[in-house]
This record gives sequence, C-alpha cells and structure tokens, in this order.
Amino acid sequence: MPSALNPNLAQFKRRNQALPAEKYVEGILSGNRVLLGQSITLVESHIAEHQAVAQKIIEACLPHSGQAQRIGITGAPGVGKSTFIEASGLHLIDSLQRKVAVLAIDPSSQMNGGSILGDKTRMEQLSRAENAFIRPSPAGETLGGVARKTRESIMLCEAAGYDTILIETVGVGQSEIAVHSMVDCFLLLLLPGAGDELQGIKRGIVEMADLVFINKAEAERHTLAQQSKKAYQNALHLLSKKESNWTPKVHIGSAFKQTGLAEIWQAVQAYFEHTNANDFLQHQRKQQATYWLSEHIENALKNWFYQDKVVQKKLDDLQKKVLEQEISPFAAADLLLKSKI
Amino acid sequence: MPSALNPNLAQFKRRNQALPAEKYVEGILSGNRVLLGQSITLVESHIAEHQAVAQKIIEACLPHSGQAQRIGITGAPGVGKSTFIEASGLHLIDSLQRKVAVLAIDPSSQMNGGSILGDKTRMEQLSRAENAFIRPSPAGETLGGVARKTRESIMLCEAAGYDTILIETVGVGQSEIAVHSMVDCFLLLLLPGAGDELQGIKRGIVEMADLVFINKAEAERHTLAQQSKKAYQNALHLLSKKESNWTPKVHIGSAFKQTGLAEIWQAVQAYFEHTNANDFLQHQRKQQATYWLSEHIENALKNWFYQDKVVQKKLDDLQKKVLEQEISPFAAADLLLKSKI
Repeated sequence: MPSALNPNLAQFKRRNQALPAEKYVEGILSGNRVLLGQSITLVESHIAEHQAVAQKIIEACLPHSGQAQRIGITGAPGVGKSTFIEASGLHLIDSLQRKVAVLAIDPSSQMNGGSILGDKTRMEQLSRAENAFIRPSPAGETLGGVARKTRESIMLCEAAGYDTILIETVGVGQSEIAVHSMVDCFLLLLLPGAGDELQGIKRGIVEMADLVFINKAEAERHTLAQQSKKAYQNALHLLSKKESNWTPKVHIGSAFKQTGLAEIWQAVQAYFEHTNANDFLQHQRKQQATYWLSEHIENALKNWFYQDKVVQKKLDDLQKKVLEQEISPFAAADLLLKSKI
Repeated sequence: MPSALNPNLAQFKRRNQALPAEKYVEGILSGNRVLLGQSITLVESHIAEHQAVAQKIIEACLPHSGQAQRIGITGAPGVGKSTFIEASGLHLIDSLQRKVAVLAIDPSSQMNGGSILGDKTRMEQLSRAENAFIRPSPAGETLGGVARKTRESIMLCEAAGYDTILIETVGVGQSEIAVHSMVDCFLLLLLPGAGDELQGIKRGIVEMADLVFINKAEAERHTLAQQSKKAYQNALHLLSKKESNWTPKVHIGSAFKQTGLAEIWQAVQAYFEHTNANDFLQHQRKQQATYWLSEHIENALKNWFYQDKVVQKKLDDLQKKVLEQEISPFAAADLLLKSKI
C-alpha cells in the first residue's frame, strides 16, 4: 500500500465519511488499489450516503468495465482452493503478464467468521504481488446481497485495469448459481479418487463446470488422479451438450507442487477462444445483464412494498388470519396489494 | 359419474359459463366428484370470470380443508409411479377405508402432451373406484402456475372429504421443490440396483425423501433390491438430521405384484404419528402457508408492475441501454421504478 495514500484511508475509517465520487473514479481508473478497495467498501456499506457515492462510482466506471475474463472457481472445503488460486494468480501474473483480481462469494462467512478469503495470509505471496488485488466476501449479507456486491466489485476491478477476475466460492450451496450469473467460465476443483458426491459437491455443480482440475495429484496419487480424470471425462461427455458448444475438459495437477497449472490455464484460454469465436461469450454476458436487471427491479419493488408501514401492519394481521385458515394466502395477498397499489 | 349431473357439465362445457359459486361449494361439500372436477377446471381457467368464481369457491372451502394427509410421490420415468399410485390408492381405499385424491405437478406436460396422469386409463381400476378422484396436471402452465393451481386443488379435494392426497411428480426437475412446499411427506420411488444418479434422480431429491420405496423388487431382483435398501439406508443416515427429527425409512416391494404395499403405507402412518406427536406437521403447514402468502404477494406485485404500459415501454429502452453498457442494471432498475412508484 503506498503510504502517501494512508491518510485518506485513515480519514475514511475514522470519520466514516466518503470522498467525492470523482476522487474514487480517478483513483480506480489510474489503477490505485487503495481507492479501489475503499470504493468496494462503499459498495458494501449499508449507509445511505455511502451507497449514493458508490452508485456514482459504478456508473462512471461502467464504460471502462467488461473487458476482463471472469472465472468462477469452486470446490469443497479441503480441496485446496486457496493454494490453487494463489499459485494460479502468480502463474497468470508472472508467465502471462496478467493483472489478477480475486473476489469471493461466501454468504456463510458472517456465520463462521469468514471461511474463504477471510484471512489474506492464506494467499500471502499473491497478496504481495503488485498486479494482484484480493478482496474477501462482504460479511453480514444474504446471498442476494453478496452476489450483487460482488458483481459491482467486478466492474470496479475491471475499470481499475484487472484483466482476469477470479471469483472463489464453496461448492456446496446455492452460491454457485449466483456465481454462474456473473462469470464467463466455471472451473471446478476436485480431489483424486473420491466421487463428487463423496466430496460434498452437489450434482448440478459438476454439470455447470466448463473445466475440472483434479488437485493434489502428487506422485503418490497420480494413478488415482488419472482414473478420476477418465471417469469425469466420461461423465461430462454423458451430460447434455452445453449451450456454449464447448466440451468440458478435465486436467490434473498439484497447486502445491505447482504442476499442471500451465495446462489448466491453457485450457481456460482455449475456452475463451472457443466461446469468443462462436459468440457465446457475448451472448452469455447479455443474458446475465438481463438477469441482473430483472433481479434489481424485483428486489427494489419488494423493498418498496414491504417497507411501507401500512403494508407491514396489514401483513402481520393477514399472516395471522392465513395461519388460522380464516383466509387463503391468495385472497390475503390481494387484500394486501389493494392497500398499497 | 352420476348421469343426473351430466347436463350441468354439458352446459358448463358448451357455454363456457360457470354456475354461481354456492352451487360448486354445495357440491364439493357433499362430495360430488363432477362439481369438484368442474371447480378445479375453474381454478385452472385463465378466464377472469372463472377465476372470480374459483376464488369464491376456494374461500368458502377453506374452513373445510387441511385435515388430509398430503403425500408427494416422485421417481424417474420408468420406475412405475402410475402402477404404484394405482395399487396404493386401491390399498388405501380397500384396506384402510380411505378416500384418495390423486393430483399431479408436471410443468412439462404442455410440451409432451402430458407425460404423467395425462391418460387416466393408466390408472383404470383406481379411476373406477368410488372413493378415488384423479386429476391430471393442468396444461399450458409454468411451474409456478401449476404449483399454485395444484395447491388450490388440494384444498378443494380436502373440502370434498378426501383424507389422503397423493401428488405425483417426476423426480428430475424443479417440480419436487414446488411439491415440497405443499406436502406433509415425501415418498421417493427407486429401482433396484442402479444408483440414484444413474436413475436420473437429482441428489437433492434423495435428501428430501421421508420414505423410499424400491419398486420392481420381484423375485429375480429381490437380492439386488435388498442391497439397494441397505445402501440407501446407510446413505440416508449419513445425511444431516431432518428438521422433523424423523429417520427416513427404506422399503422394498413390487407395486405390480402388490407386495410391500402394506409395509410402506404402515411406514407412512408411522411418519404421520411421529411428526404429529412432535408438532412438526403443524409447524411445516404454517411455514408452507407463510411461503405461499409471500409467493402470491410477490407474483401479484410483479404482475401489477410489468403489466403497466409505461413500464413496458421504458423497460424496453432501458434493457437496450443496459446491453450497450450505457447504464448499469442497478441504475436502470431505479429509473424504471421511479416511473411507476
């Protein structure tokens, strides 16, 4: 962190007061990591004044966003996600001259104190790299909240010049579906040997994967990893053809021993070339934008409705009547709506 | 069908005109199957006049509903759902003096012309039984639409005196989640031998099951079925404890040979006794009612908003701007909402 900028940060933290939006935009566009980080803090803030500044920053950054490769990375706890992301980040920066931002979607982090990316020291080397930016999942949010804020953070990172966005998530819940609505490419990490069901990976997740990396395939587990590779390749062939017309690839390696990384990232590049050539990439981005537009409209609509004091009071009464079977949920909904619209 | 009632039915069909709501309510409460069927047709109708009558019927039947056992039955195509439901229905009616209504949730039926319950002749014997009522899934609906209409149909069947409602669904899609929001108990049918993933059953479905029946366990497949039973019993033990505090049970049998039916329905009764004793049943019904209230409110709110002509025009414009990255989905949603609320 450039120390010249620390006074700003300190002021921000002490007074809980945001700078004018232009300052942040300027900072982001010049690649300033401190101002990028502060902007994301504003995006994550629940204070109305912060939200207003955040929205200005987002709109100003919008024309400068969209050019990065957005890659979702998932896998069950213990599969070595942090090690894989750290090794991958360093590979992308050092060998491919990329600028890498790492974000996370983990709605459980408020409960267990941050299971992923909560502790930057888990990616010590990467966090020290000049061309890396690491940001844990916002705490104290619902999945919808986390997803929205992560999506906004992606845009800011792109405006700051990061050309590769890695979005980490745990492969056990609904988070993958949220991630899927914001990434171009989905990479699943597995362990050698055990079936995905034994690894706690939900079946739908495997079907979402564009690429699989069987991690921890060190010498003593190499044969096992080869067998797993074959099994997953067969399974992925059996699954219905993807809209992208891409056949998912399975690679093996060890993030810890730094083997197989060049190959998996070559495969990721092949995926981007394929989906760029057949326009799937652009098509998917448009679908995602449309999805987010609907999501925001419907969330805003619900907020507007449920925040109304009259609605809240009536809803309480009607809910009781529904539970007592005095009125059907349908008629109750009608009555409630008539009180407001 | 009592022939004396046929003129009503004919008039209804010919003129597309509904009787006064009281007539239907009277008919339903006296257990008249023809008027029950017509009422469900009104529930399923998209004609505003029919909907208005349907809502009156539902409100009037509401105080007479809720006392039945609602059981969801799922399984992949080919597992023998129809045979199982027919044999079960006859067992419940003949041996346990029940009145059985069979409904279905199959949003795919509009596409393939009704894959489940579309053809009543598949349950010929049961459809002739006096204490049975069979109704296929409404066609031409989204899953949300089917779910709502099925839920309303459950209430009408209960008001007509059916004490056991079987709701059939195919175990491959989202329908099970919808069914789960309206049943007390979830029964999964499987074949001997093959794992659930090979049977096209999604993993989450197995976790939802309160009871499993391994069907087609005829003599030559008995050993295989026993092995499957053991495997599923182990698997179900591994899964996290259910809120109901009930340990899922696995039974084997053959609906075709009518073996194992008494045992599985005894297990269903044990489930109801258990969940009744620990109040889970009542608790779940309340949760479901609350869920449906929210569902109805939010659907009605969205309909009201999106049907507005000004909103529709603005949405088209804003969608284009979002796709061109001229405006973020958030800002677009805000603008759209301001035009209406």
